[in-house]
Amino acid sequence: MNMRVVFIQTGGTIDKDYPKKERGYAFEFGEPAVERILQRVNPSFDFEVISVFEKDSLDITSEDRKRIYDACRKARSSKIVITHGTDTIIETARELSKIRGKAIVLTGSMRPEKFSDSDASFNVGTAIGAVNVIEDGVYIAMNGGVYRWDRVRRDGDSGRFVEG
Amino acid sequence: MNMRVVFIQTGGTIDKDYPKKERGYAFEFGEPAVERILQRVNPSFDFEVISVFEKDSLDITSEDRKRIYDACRKARSSKIVITHGTDTIIETARELSKIRGKAIVLTGSMRPEKFSDSDASFNVGTAIGAVNVIEDGVYIAMNGGVYRWDRVRRDGDSGRFVEG
Amino acid sequence: MNMRVVFIQTGGTIDKDYPKKERGYAFEFGEPAVERILQRVNPSFDFEVISVFEKDSLDITSEDRKRIYDACRKARSSKIVITHGTDTIIETARELSKIRGKAIVLTGSMRPEKFSDSDASFNVGTAIGAVNVIEDGVYIAMNGGVYRWDRVRRDGDSGRFVEG
Amino acid sequence: MNMRVVFIQTGGTIDKDYPKKERGYAFEFGEPAVERILQRVNPSFDFEVISVFEKDSLDITSEDRKRIYDACRKARSSKIVITHGTDTIIETARELSKIRGKAIVLTGSMRPEKFSDSDASFNVGTAIGAVNVIEDGVYIAMNGGVYRWDRVRRDGDSGRFVEG
Repeated sequence: MNMRVVFIQTGGTIDKDYPKKERGYAFEFGEPAVERILQRVNPSFDFEVISVFEKDSLDITSEDRKRIYDACRKARSSKIVITHGTDTIIETARELSKIRGKAIVLTGSMRPEKFSDSDASFNVGTAIGAVNVIEDGVYIAMNGGVYRWDRVRRDGDSGRFVEG
Repeated sequence: MNMRVVFIQTGGTIDKDYPKKERGYAFEFGEPAVERILQRVNPSFDFEVISVFEKDSLDITSEDRKRIYDACRKARSSKIVITHGTDTIIETARELSKIRGKAIVLTGSMRPEKFSDSDASFNVGTAIGAVNVIEDGVYIAMNGGVYRWDRVRRDGDSGRFVEG
Repeated sequence: MNMRVVFIQTGGTIDKDYPKKERGYAFEFGEPAVERILQRVNPSFDFEVISVFEKDSLDITSEDRKRIYDACRKARSSKIVITHGTDTIIETARELSKIRGKAIVLTGSMRPEKFSDSDASFNVGTAIGAVNVIEDGVYIAMNGGVYRWDRVRRDGDSGRFVEG
Repeated sequence: MNMRVVFIQTGGTIDKDYPKKERGYAFEFGEPAVERILQRVNPSFDFEVISVFEKDSLDITSEDRKRIYDACRKARSSKIVITHGTDTIIETARELSKIRGKAIVLTGSMRPEKFSDSDASFNVGTAIGAVNVIEDGVYIAMNGGVYRWDRVRRDGDSGRFVEG
């Protein structure tokens, strides 16, 4: 039987697109980047993509986190990958850490998936590589590292996620 | 202490580039794709890239496989990612299965990393995600799946690597 | 003798990049997109890139336009390509129309050059194609059209530059 | 009235794609690159794409050139852009030079349009920029230059098309 993965979209840099209309200064959110990434991969697993909301992660509220929590609980698979803005990804991971019996990996990107030099494909790949192997728990996959939610911090200078 | 990963380049589609000179019909091999991929990722782990040879995987001989085997044995890390052509990747994985105490993940791609719609970044990401978590053994990471070397086959119609 | 082209950078969507640092909502301006584009092209002409300023074109003032005007006057070539935000590109073109004896083509893009689906390379190509052939005058090259500054308008619905 | 451009596809590097199936050493020809390029551009002109054949330009015969000639003659526009392999593009241009009353620009690319660092978009842009302005004659647009068919040669060392 095929592995089944539920992807949960919450916004963040990975999903940012350029405004189609005139006079736009800032980014807008577009379709889930995960769908474009998986189209290139010809995946052997089954998946569905659930969009909970599309927010810059600095704007995510406690109630928003409750909605992510609920989406994870209801997800029809024990393997979950969440795409999320990097600024508060650790807070969301902590919130989800009470969930048992599911392997949850959060990831995002430093540059939008739409950029030609984006890290998005690699990061989603890392999350998928981890979710294949881990049985249970909440992890963050960024910068090529896979960290348990309580063993990761962001390095101030480089912006990298590192153990600690 | 940072994770340390040794990347071993052996050629394959992932490294194919377009001939710079005139009158070229076929692909040529270029620089290791892994280096371009990691440049976009800002990795938190230490790594080195070792080029053993650059071959289409249908041309890999038993002696070539012995060279990959030796490179794995000598690698100054227990975490190894090998980029390889997909046509004989399972044969090479089997050959390496005698190695103990190392986590070895083989990957490749269906389209060269140089292509804008390549699966290379994602696949190397998947391999890195797996190598973070697994302790020991030889695995293949393709199409979003991570398979032990003796539990994978290639599906004839779709060309996907699947469990079996 | 080789053709010589002076590129003048003024900002606009074409040069927008994603902020490298944390907590950034909006775009920032990066290096001139023209330099990345020409690197892929292996141009047969000589060129230099002059950065006058980097602004969203809605923020360009009369004094800024005077600076572009001066840069065109002083340019050590009669062939000039200006990259510019699209919102006020026609105003700037009008301002430059008093210049005699130079072929000036303004262009820009709807999506940043950094985007994998950007129109930037094509548009700069169109401007260069035009500047090869025209002898004198101020033109806008967008959406595959090359228009004299006083025979172009922007279509409200499609956002395209059209004759009129 | 909108400008109308007829694109003629003849193969060449610009259209090369990677074989989808296993065991492929060489490139295969894919859909006309021009269609993917124009999709990114939102063109203001009308166009149609005619595929005459898909060949490496070293394999193009006199009869093939006759077919290109006929396609140009029958084209329902006086503005024609031909995509062509670079190795014999000058021969084909010469063959077409007898045609009167049409502006014909031949172009191609050094790397397939599918490559992320391709020059294809820029080159097709250059051809379109030229075809907007010129009234009549056969031209080659490569490396940012637009050359009459009888005033161009390929520089042996750099591979660039230059005046001469």
